[in-house]
Amino acid sequence: MRAEINCDMGESFGLYRMGNDAEIMPHITQANVACGFHASDPGHMHQTVALAKTHGVKVGAHVSLPDLPGFGRREMKIEREEMANIILYQIGALSAFLKQADVALSHIKPHGALYGMAAREPHIAEAVADAALVYGVPVTGLSGTLHEKVYTERGVTFLPEFFADLDYDDEGRLIITREHEAVSPDLAASRVVAAVRDRTLTTVGGKTLPVKAETICIHSDTPNSVEIARAVHEALGQLKTA
Amino acid sequence: MRAEINCDMGESFGLYRMGNDAEIMPHITQANVACGFHASDPGHMHQTVALAKTHGVKVGAHVSLPDLPGFGRREMKIEREEMANIILYQIGALSAFLKQADVALSHIKPHGALYGMAAREPHIAEAVADAALVYGVPVTGLSGTLHEKVYTERGVTFLPEFFADLDYDDEGRLIITREHEAVSPDLAASRVVAAVRDRTLTTVGGKTLPVKAETICIHSDTPNSVEIARAVHEALGQLKTA
Amino acid sequence: MRAEINCDMGESFGLYRMGNDAEIMPHITQANVACGFHASDPGHMHQTVALAKTHGVKVGAHVSLPDLPGFGRREMKIEREEMANIILYQIGALSAFLKQADVALSHIKPHGALYGMAAREPHIAEAVADAALVYGVPVTGLSGTLHEKVYTERGVTFLPEFFADLDYDDEGRLIITREHEAVSPDLAASRVVAAVRDRTLTTVGGKTLPVKAETICIHSDTPNSVEIARAVHEALGQLKTA
Amino acid sequence: MRAEINCDMGESFGLYRMGNDAEIMPHITQANVACGFHASDPGHMHQTVALAKTHGVKVGAHVSLPDLPGFGRREMKIEREEMANIILYQIGALSAFLKQADVALSHIKPHGALYGMAAREPHIAEAVADAALVYGVPVTGLSGTLHEKVYTERGVTFLPEFFADLDYDDEGRLIITREHEAVSPDLAASRVVAAVRDRTLTTVGGKTLPVKAETICIHSDTPNSVEIARAVHEALGQLKTA
Repeated sequence: MRAEINCDMGESFGLYRMGNDAEIMPHITQANVACGFHASDPGHMHQTVALAKTHGVKVGAHVSLPDLPGFGRREMKIEREEMANIILYQIGALSAFLKQADVALSHIKPHGALYGMAAREPHIAEAVADAALVYGVPVTGLSGTLHEKVYTERGVTFLPEFFADLDYDDEGRLIITREHEAVSPDLAASRVVAAVRDRTLTTVGGKTLPVKAETICIHSDTPNSVEIARAVHEALGQLKTA
Repeated sequence: MRAEINCDMGESFGLYRMGNDAEIMPHITQANVACGFHASDPGHMHQTVALAKTHGVKVGAHVSLPDLPGFGRREMKIEREEMANIILYQIGALSAFLKQADVALSHIKPHGALYGMAAREPHIAEAVADAALVYGVPVTGLSGTLHEKVYTERGVTFLPEFFADLDYDDEGRLIITREHEAVSPDLAASRVVAAVRDRTLTTVGGKTLPVKAETICIHSDTPNSVEIARAVHEALGQLKTA
Repeated sequence: MRAEINCDMGESFGLYRMGNDAEIMPHITQANVACGFHASDPGHMHQTVALAKTHGVKVGAHVSLPDLPGFGRREMKIEREEMANIILYQIGALSAFLKQADVALSHIKPHGALYGMAAREPHIAEAVADAALVYGVPVTGLSGTLHEKVYTERGVTFLPEFFADLDYDDEGRLIITREHEAVSPDLAASRVVAAVRDRTLTTVGGKTLPVKAETICIHSDTPNSVEIARAVHEALGQLKTA
Repeated sequence: MRAEINCDMGESFGLYRMGNDAEIMPHITQANVACGFHASDPGHMHQTVALAKTHGVKVGAHVSLPDLPGFGRREMKIEREEMANIILYQIGALSAFLKQADVALSHIKPHGALYGMAAREPHIAEAVADAALVYGVPVTGLSGTLHEKVYTERGVTFLPEFFADLDYDDEGRLIITREHEAVSPDLAASRVVAAVRDRTLTTVGGKTLPVKAETICIHSDTPNSVEIARAVHEALGQLKTA
């Protein structure tokens, strides 16, 4: 009856600020750190690893398509080996700051369009697995998609994630929105408790469906993300000690 | 009476080709592999590490200023911590392909303008040392400059390099040329033997000066670089067995 | 009984060389100049415009997806307005060097994956038209595709191109190959004559089909591109005077 | 007794936001629009030109060194012709959106490190002039520096700018700060009136010095920039009608 809480971190770039890492970091257990291909830069990667270490938060590589102007949200046609190399490059880049801080790489999470592509395109999921096997760490993804199927087949530990701040349709599919709306922290927390303790979710149509939730994703661009993170963190804390 | 032979490798980028890595690799012992900031990309880094491994050649990180359009040859004003982070990012990126190939990182060599800046600007030499200490590997550079002074002071092993295909002035300073001219392979080999065995070099003015030469640099863009590499390799081989 | 001869030009980048512009330029009438998004840089754009002017060759903008590492050959999911803005940016960038050289913008040609996307995806073809209408110049493309349909509907002059160095299947579709093989200059010239004079092409299966050919494309990366360009140029010259 | 009011605009990049363009635009007369080399992208350039047009604000090209990660604030060693080509590329890129909006290019202003370099390094000032002469528009800069000397010598109209939100030392030199502090709008307005009407400035040491002020720069990252812009705008308006 435990689950990690993950959040995208380190997405600032140069003078550009994104996210409120310092406020959210105390309430999560896994930081998905951008690696310079959709966001971040060497300086912000260094700082974000240091911040995560201060809070005892695990650090994973938030790997992306090579698309800084599009924030990694524009799908690209890309071959498996090229994709695997692009992912490896990013994990490696992050690993330098982890080595410097003496922190282990915790996991890998594909970002944005790469996340969606790996869920649907076998050669992309295989590329993610190719890279993950080099580092021997789990990959965070969406259960019931190629994330689960391919990683598991390849012997990569799969970390199914549940979204505290998004809705699911009656087929259990995540309803992905470009802009994330505020959601009540209590509602988010109760959803998370149901997902982790009862392994169920309630769809927008009111159906109860089974769900796998080993890590809870908090979107830092949801307007009240800090409150959501805090509420989810507390609820999961009570669950552990219950 | 030994010396390494180093050459810049993996400088192709996408469809663009540079260097003749496959021909030179058999004749060197250290490949300085570009890390994507002045040249190369994830695919070429992957291939270059594989090629080096095939030939039993050690792999170092050829780190650069962030300047792909300028091939890392345009000096930039950059602060120590930012520079160190930029270098770390590149070493880390390369380390992913080394980890995949099960090859150890051998050394670090600053590229182009960064090489010159580290030779003259204390904060840049310190930044190189900052990054090198994270990985605990030697740094290749020019003796008699801040390369030697700063790295040594910081406890970083310094690998003084000698240039088989360039001239030295009467003060012992390397005469750096933008375009490298062909040089007789025999002349290059005899220079190398003098540098490694006798620890001397002959200047353009005919003076004999002391020199430190633990690794011999072959420029892959010198027109007859393959012949030079072969001749130097053979000469050093005879020296070892002598 | 005339046709232009177009070739991609100015695709070098920094120290990286691509194409043999100086040799091909005398044999063409339209240079499609790369604008920095798949290849080229400000220096090469400047030089290429100057070279074209010397030879009295018209200059068009060879616009691309934003993908320098992939040479513009990786399809991206991109919305119409964003695509139009990306194309406008590139045309504008080229226009500075045209203004400097007092040369008019002749045409626009989508490059690589953008060419293919505009042929098949209505919103991309519309985006090309959006940008072309700002400059009021023709767009080069493949007849029988959305290039022809959308540009014509929008009031953009459509320049159908015929490929001297590629084959066509029995449905008249171009057989696009990643690597272009050498083709006999005589064969290429006779194909061009048939296309321009007789408005027909012969398919790989031996069928004769109607074809529109107002500009002939020579691929600079076809191994004997200079010979092909020369032969096609001569054949078209004889046609004009016939 | 008139002066323009200029402000850097369009510095957002992809999802990253910078500046409060919509609030400041009503209070200025010249927008210096970023061209993608230190900030901005095709979409934001398009939007910024449209916003400026709505408010009847003139549009200039805010050209930079090629340094997106460093926001154009890191000096680079760059040759005159290369620099001129880089500037031309950016002006051209902006000109596409101006052409689309039927707005004329008003002026050129070098950004960040390029501004400083052009003030001190003759070959950089010449490069700015090289590019400006192609477009025949004025260049905004600091009087008493190479901006004034070189542009004027080359026949480029020089627009001396006065900084409402910065201090000047007793030699009349601008005291440039990395972070801009809030300054009283009334103080800024009275400084501007003195500069424009009386052609004098008061230094930090209390000295009164002559000054040239044909355009007043408002930094959008000064905390109360909107209030400063409004106050300066009103003060200049009263001056005109006085």
